[in-house]
Amino acid sequence: MRLHHVGIAVEDLEAAKARYLLLGFRVEAEGEVAAQGVRVAMLRGEGEALLELLAPLGPETPVGRFLAKRGPGLHHLAFATPDIEGALAALRAAGARPVDETPRPGFGGHRVAFLHPSFAQGVLWELVEG
Amino acid sequence: MRLHHVGIAVEDLEAAKARYLLLGFRVEAEGEVAAQGVRVAMLRGEGEALLELLAPLGPETPVGRFLAKRGPGLHHLAFATPDIEGALAALRAAGARPVDETPRPGFGGHRVAFLHPSFAQGVLWELVEG
Repeated sequence: MRLHHVGIAVEDLEAAKARYLLLGFRVEAEGEVAAQGVRVAMLRGEGEALLELLAPLGPETPVGRFLAKRGPGLHHLAFATPDIEGALAALRAAGARPVDETPRPGFGGHRVAFLHPSFAQGVLWELVEG
Repeated sequence: MRLHHVGIAVEDLEAAKARYLLLGFRVEAEGEVAAQGVRVAMLRGEGEALLELLAPLGPETPVGRFLAKRGPGLHHLAFATPDIEGALAALRAAGARPVDETPRPGFGGHRVAFLHPSFAQGVLWELVEG
């Protein structure tokens, strides 16, 4: 697999975008994932891995609760796989506990699935099909 | 710039490596950075961005203190630049506060410099020359 993007929880999407523009990153896509209660800006630099800024639409959302507990900062690692069901099954067989038992639509129309951070020493993993 | 690697603070380097091997990542390099009190495993997947596992050599090290305060998890984002002095000057002019006033040797012989996470909503940034 390859690293697809790094998810970053932010309180202020515009202010955060401005910081990454300083590094030469550009906004490739932006929009809401209503089912996750989040507004997303996907940033592309000179390389292939993306940065995904995540601002909550309200406090009672996954990212809202993350911010209340941990403050803003690095949130998850997303890995690209051509076969998300196969990857999910292999990780489950190795002891990982899926947050999503079956893949669901994520930002940009990709199918995604998250895995509980207990499996990877505190790191929330996301699988992205593509 | 491009994302060079994601730094991940871990308590058990061998156990953490085993998790990323499941994703198809391989250990590209491993060793100690004594000046930072850390043992490092640099992992490469199918993409260009690397994952850097960081295990502290003792509690009174930067990563040891991070683990005591936050627990294991995502630690920093590293960006590659061909001109680390120029990038550092530009970020300082934009209001960033360097942890390292001048670049210093990092893992693998690259010159590196860290920036305080207050600048990027809680994310510790590293510049890597290369």
